[in-house]
Amino acid sequence: MVLTKTPLLAETVRKLVSRGAFANAHRILEKLHPADVAQVLADLPEAYRLKTFRVVFQRDLNLAAAALGEFGVERAADLMPRLEPAEISQLLQELDPDDAAEFLSELPEELRERVLRGMRTREASDVEDLLQYPEETAGRIMSPKVFSVPEDATIGETIARLQESPDVEMVFYIYVVDGHGTLVGVLSLRQLLQRRPEALLSEVMVTDVLRVRTEMDQEEVAQLVASYNILAVPVVNQQGKLVGVITVDDIIDVIKEEATEDMYRMAGLGVSESVFTKASRSIRMRIPWLTVNLATAFLAAWVVSLFEEDIARFAILAVFMPMVPLLGGNAGNQTLTVMVRGIALGELSWKNSRQALLKELAVGSANGLMIGLLIAGVSWVWKGDPRIGLALALAMIGTMVVAAIVGTLMPLTLRWLKVDPALASSVFVTTATDVSGFLLFLSIGVTALTHL
Amino acid sequence: MVLTKTPLLAETVRKLVSRGAFANAHRILEKLHPADVAQVLADLPEAYRLKTFRVVFQRDLNLAAAALGEFGVERAADLMPRLEPAEISQLLQELDPDDAAEFLSELPEELRERVLRGMRTREASDVEDLLQYPEETAGRIMSPKVFSVPEDATIGETIARLQESPDVEMVFYIYVVDGHGTLVGVLSLRQLLQRRPEALLSEVMVTDVLRVRTEMDQEEVAQLVASYNILAVPVVNQQGKLVGVITVDDIIDVIKEEATEDMYRMAGLGVSESVFTKASRSIRMRIPWLTVNLATAFLAAWVVSLFEEDIARFAILAVFMPMVPLLGGNAGNQTLTVMVRGIALGELSWKNSRQALLKELAVGSANGLMIGLLIAGVSWVWKGDPRIGLALALAMIGTMVVAAIVGTLMPLTLRWLKVDPALASSVFVTTATDVSGFLLFLSIGVTALTHL
Repeated sequence: MVLTKTPLLAETVRKLVSRGAFANAHRILEKLHPADVAQVLADLPEAYRLKTFRVVFQRDLNLAAAALGEFGVERAADLMPRLEPAEISQLLQELDPDDAAEFLSELPEELRERVLRGMRTREASDVEDLLQYPEETAGRIMSPKVFSVPEDATIGETIARLQESPDVEMVFYIYVVDGHGTLVGVLSLRQLLQRRPEALLSEVMVTDVLRVRTEMDQEEVAQLVASYNILAVPVVNQQGKLVGVITVDDIIDVIKEEATEDMYRMAGLGVSESVFTKASRSIRMRIPWLTVNLATAFLAAWVVSLFEEDIARFAILAVFMPMVPLLGGNAGNQTLTVMVRGIALGELSWKNSRQALLKELAVGSANGLMIGLLIAGVSWVWKGDPRIGLALALAMIGTMVVAAIVGTLMPLTLRWLKVDPALASSVFVTTATDVSGFLLFLSIGVTALTHL
Repeated sequence: MVLTKTPLLAETVRKLVSRGAFANAHRILEKLHPADVAQVLADLPEAYRLKTFRVVFQRDLNLAAAALGEFGVERAADLMPRLEPAEISQLLQELDPDDAAEFLSELPEELRERVLRGMRTREASDVEDLLQYPEETAGRIMSPKVFSVPEDATIGETIARLQESPDVEMVFYIYVVDGHGTLVGVLSLRQLLQRRPEALLSEVMVTDVLRVRTEMDQEEVAQLVASYNILAVPVVNQQGKLVGVITVDDIIDVIKEEATEDMYRMAGLGVSESVFTKASRSIRMRIPWLTVNLATAFLAAWVVSLFEEDIARFAILAVFMPMVPLLGGNAGNQTLTVMVRGIALGELSWKNSRQALLKELAVGSANGLMIGLLIAGVSWVWKGDPRIGLALALAMIGTMVVAAIVGTLMPLTLRWLKVDPALASSVFVTTATDVSGFLLFLSIGVTALTHL
């Protein structure tokens, strides 16, 4: 399979490039699919990436542009600024406007202007139009090159037009527009084949067209396309005018992006970070999250400090103290992950949240009980003191119930407050489980050790 | 937008169903896209789901089947067993074989047999063929209904065939086979339109066809389709015979599924769990993970117990003790998430792991230093003892370096051992950060407090 072959290719290419045998290197790369060229670039040691890219760039602009498109904005973040503005312009004008817009939006303001000025006017204006729309909306990710036909055209004429227009992004549906460019109907390629050439589109088209507005959030668009199993969705502006199309390949990128986003946010990572983000950038992007958690850690420490004298008397409390918040945190994280994913997949809403909460409460208390008994048993056997076990068991149950409540309600609340549920939930959950864990265990423990 | 309209619909439907006004309920549902019927079912209180589904089932089998397909195996897990085997048979034989196979594979062995016997022979055998292939392989998720044409056919004949065969899954490409059914070429619908009707396929087809083998992992297939931006990929058996096709809509499901899988595994959740999995099932599925973490928690407790006397003397150690592992855990989780996602997206391999490790080491020590200084400062101000601060700072740096190393190498190692990196990594990382965190802080702290 091609994708597994690339590491070896990368090694060969590296050798050739290092020897300055650029022509030979290119002879290998030109045979590859752009996606594989991108993979080779990814597999290359950082030092060779730019050089190798230039090898292709100077010999085959189209391949270079396509490869860049496949390489993706994130991975290209280090590459782009090291190219000449003029080179970037040449590359971007070969890309589909929606891809070009994505790359441009990542460039520093000043460079972006220079690159745009360097592009052919038509391409530049296409891209500038897209950049008008806010990020992560349908308008931003759509392709303005949409294949549309006036309603008074015949099937025959449509087929003829289709044959003459090679440069439109993959065509799956024929969108039909009226005199004002308003979207009035649709026809699939397949239906096109099944009609008499002389039939009018207005007679055979489907008039109930699923469409999205330019301002719709890209995640909603993705959910729509995915759940309706369609290959492309037309994009209209406020006036209902057809302004673009979003194809399923863009949807796939969105779905991947949104999944990464959720995972990352739960771990407190910047969305644009990848394995090969520069260390300096990663440091800056990760420190805020750690600082937030530092605060919650101090809160936990403060809770413990309330029991400082007791711990001096019963040092054994300190030994078992970390277990309850640790396990409570794990349980809370399980609940949280199910909820965040449920929201992302559109399965969870306030509507059915009651059912979800009751379920998590049941799960939390049941698992709390089981883990509680287990922990009590082991600690009793280990330290021979049933009172510690008792405290552990009770604290465990309590903490897991807290974990269930906070883990379920926090993401829903954040979403209701229009904050990304994946983003801040885990801080709140950890804080809740830490504080309640220490508080419950230490207070119960102290009482047990003094009065039992 | 349709998807946002459904909660209200669900409420209306619920009222009607509860009043026994089934015909009216159906009159609302029959107007909807199957995906929306599925959404309505999801929005309904559990008690009404089966009843409402039967309302559709009894009046419009096709809609019921399609809605079931959109509802998905996970969400249908509670619904299916409550249907009659005969009903299930009727439903599944209306679904595409690949979807039917997915539902069947979730049913208990014995029920599965009964359902299969109840299905029409042709559909049953289609499904049984698919079930021959292991789960999560191309063979299991492909549709055996692939549109193929002999190489000696003409463009005109092909178009005619296409028009006669309505039941093949969405057709985007025409696959060309030789006398033995071996895949020899491909032609897009678009190219079909652009050729003379009398041209032979063998003359105009593209012979270098991207294909996958039945045994290929579904995640690889998804990566392939995604990176090549194709709409469908043909599936061949060992002999190169064309046996099925995987379309982009199935790929989207795979991508979502794999993303959920990674998130879930990192949190120790069962892949098939969703917001509405029965509590009893969730309890069983979550307890193993908690038990594993219980073990690591005991390990941590044991480490602390080594310092029990010291803590009796310096109870203040217990106050700050939890902070180091807590923050180390956060940092480790950040590294881990980037790595796991990097592997899933095919960006990270042993090949470029050295670069990744060096980067994480840099990030870990830098953030360790910053957080360390911060924590030292605050604790000094709070407790007025610089020695605690010193211990915290040093332990923090050390633990974050450990987090970076384990967080980077563990997923790669597990993957190399053919274990899912997302699955066990986080246990190892937490264990490493907990143990090193407590060990470093307590040992340094004790030394500082006794000798400084």
